[in-house]
Amino acid sequence: MYDLVIIGGGPAGLSAGIYAIRYGLDVIVLEKNEISGQIALTEIVENYPGFKSINGMELMEKFKEHAQDAGVTIQSSEVLNVKNEGKIKIVSTDSGELEAKSVIIATGASPQHLGIPGEEELIGKGVSYCATCDGPFFTNLNVIVVGGGDSAITDALILSKIVKTVSIVHRRDSLRAVKIMQERAFSAKNIEFFWDTVIEKIIGSETVEKVVLKNLKTDEVKEMKIDGVFIYVGIQPNTYFVDIDKNKSGFIITNARMETSAEGIYAAGDCRETSLRQVVTAASDGAMAALSAYEYVTGVWSGT
Amino acid sequence: MYDLVIIGGGPAGLSAGIYAIRYGLDVIVLEKNEISGQIALTEIVENYPGFKSINGMELMEKFKEHAQDAGVTIQSSEVLNVKNEGKIKIVSTDSGELEAKSVIIATGASPQHLGIPGEEELIGKGVSYCATCDGPFFTNLNVIVVGGGDSAITDALILSKIVKTVSIVHRRDSLRAVKIMQERAFSAKNIEFFWDTVIEKIIGSETVEKVVLKNLKTDEVKEMKIDGVFIYVGIQPNTYFVDIDKNKSGFIITNARMETSAEGIYAAGDCRETSLRQVVTAASDGAMAALSAYEYVTGVWSGT
Repeated sequence: MYDLVIIGGGPAGLSAGIYAIRYGLDVIVLEKNEISGQIALTEIVENYPGFKSINGMELMEKFKEHAQDAGVTIQSSEVLNVKNEGKIKIVSTDSGELEAKSVIIATGASPQHLGIPGEEELIGKGVSYCATCDGPFFTNLNVIVVGGGDSAITDALILSKIVKTVSIVHRRDSLRAVKIMQERAFSAKNIEFFWDTVIEKIIGSETVEKVVLKNLKTDEVKEMKIDGVFIYVGIQPNTYFVDIDKNKSGFIITNARMETSAEGIYAAGDCRETSLRQVVTAASDGAMAALSAYEYVTGVWSGT
Repeated sequence: MYDLVIIGGGPAGLSAGIYAIRYGLDVIVLEKNEISGQIALTEIVENYPGFKSINGMELMEKFKEHAQDAGVTIQSSEVLNVKNEGKIKIVSTDSGELEAKSVIIATGASPQHLGIPGEEELIGKGVSYCATCDGPFFTNLNVIVVGGGDSAITDALILSKIVKTVSIVHRRDSLRAVKIMQERAFSAKNIEFFWDTVIEKIIGSETVEKVVLKNLKTDEVKEMKIDGVFIYVGIQPNTYFVDIDKNKSGFIITNARMETSAEGIYAAGDCRETSLRQVVTAASDGAMAALSAYEYVTGVWSGT
C-alpha cells in the first residue's frame, strides 16, 4: 500500500514526486513513456524561469534526474483505471494493480483532432500534431499549420526553418498566440496566412496530396495542393480512466489545493481545468497536490 | 504610462516579467534591493524542479538574468503607495510616480517578530531571522532556534554545522517541518529540543546573554545562557502600501487567476493568501498574474 501513487511523469507528476519525497511519503510515479510531458516534444522552452532557453526534452530530463536523485521511483506502466474505495484507491495498470492511500492525477493532455475526413487515415502520412517530431520529414516541402494559438505559431516558426512554405490556416482573423511569437511569424518570409479559413477535408492516397479549404466569411471553397498538415486546435485531457468531476471538455475540476471531487484524489497540470498551461504552472500544481496528499495521508497540518 | 508595473523582483515578480514581455506588454519591475526574494537568503534550494541543488542567491541571479535577457527592465525603487484610480493606477515610489494600466503586487513577506521584551533592542546583536545571513557570527557559540516549521528546521541544520549547540525551542510537542528535514534534525548530534516551550524575554546589554524560557505544560520558568536567538515563527506580508482585500494576517486575497478585489491589480507569490509558499508556486503565480494583466490591458482573450 503506497501513501501516494502519482499518475504521469511530466512536469506536474515529477514535481509532485520531488515534494512528496520531501514530505516523507512512500510514493511511486507511473508513466507510460520513457520521458513524458507534451513539453518534451517542444523544441525550445524560453519561459520556465531560471532557464533562459532550453530544449523541452532536456528540461524534462533534468526534472526526471532531479526526482530520481531525490529518491522518487518511476515505474513504466500505463494506468487503465482508478477506483476510489474510500480510504483505499485501486490503481489498475497494464502491469497489475496498486493500492494507495492517495492519488495525484497528472496525466496531461493530448492534441485535439479536427475530426474531418482524411485526418485519421493520414496520421503519420502527412498529418501531424508535432513539428518537433515530424518537421524534418517535410524538408523543402509545403505545409499547412492549422490554428492561431501559441502552439500553432511556435511550431509554424520551427517549420518555417525546415520547409519551403508554411501556410497558417486559422478560423479567425487574428492570432491568439503571445505577441512576441506573432511578431516573429509576421516577419518570417515563408509564412503566409489564410484568415477566417478552415480545412474541410484532407485528401491523399499514400500521403497527403491536397486539402479542401473553406473561407468562413465568403463561403468560398477551394482545393490546395500540400505535402503536410500540422494541426494545433487545442488539447484534450487524458482523464477518461477516472470517474471524478470534470468540465464539459473532460478537464478535472479542482480547487486551489488541487483537491478533486473525490477525497484523497488530486489533479495537477494540464489535465485539470485552469486558464494557463505551462511547465511552471504544472510544476507548481504538482507541489501543491503533494502538500494536499501529505496532509490527507498523515493528518498533519503543515500550512502556514 | 506603462501597461504593467510589477512591484517586487523575487521569483513571482521576475516570472511575471518574463511572461509579460512575451505577451508584448510594456512592463517594468520595481525592486528595492539588488537581488530580492526571501529565497536569496536561503543557503540551499533543493525543491525548485529542474535544479537538484542550488544556492538561493544563485537561483535568483538566474531568474534575474533570464528576465533581463528577455527584455525586462528592473528599476531600483521602493514603492510607498499604490492608488487605484480605475483605468489608471498610480504607483508612488521613493524616486517618483509611475502610471500604469495594471499592477502586479509581488512584494513577498518578511519574518514575523516574537514581540517579546529584548527582541527589538537586540536585533543584529544576537537576535536574527536568517541563519544564512548571520550564522557565521556564531561560530562555536550556543544558539537557540525558535519555531518548528520548515524555515526553523532548515536553518537549525545550517547553524548546527557552524555553532557549538543548537537548542530548538518550540511551543508544541512535534515539528511541522517536512519529514526529511525532521529526520536530519533528530539525527544531528548538537541539536537538542525544548518542546512545549516559549521564550518570554531576551536579556543582554551589548549582545544577547540569556533568555527566559517557559514550559507551557508545566508553567516552569527558567533562565538559560545563550549567545544568539534565531526566530522563525512565520512571516508577515509586505502589503501595507495598498488598500485591497486582505485576510486578517494581511495576505492579499486572490482567485486562481491572481485577481484581487481591485480590477487591474493582481497579486502573486508569498504576499497572497495561499497554502504553500515556494519558489515554484511563486513563479507560477507570476505567470498567471501576467496572463491576467495581459487580458485586462489588451482585452484579448488568450486562454485555452
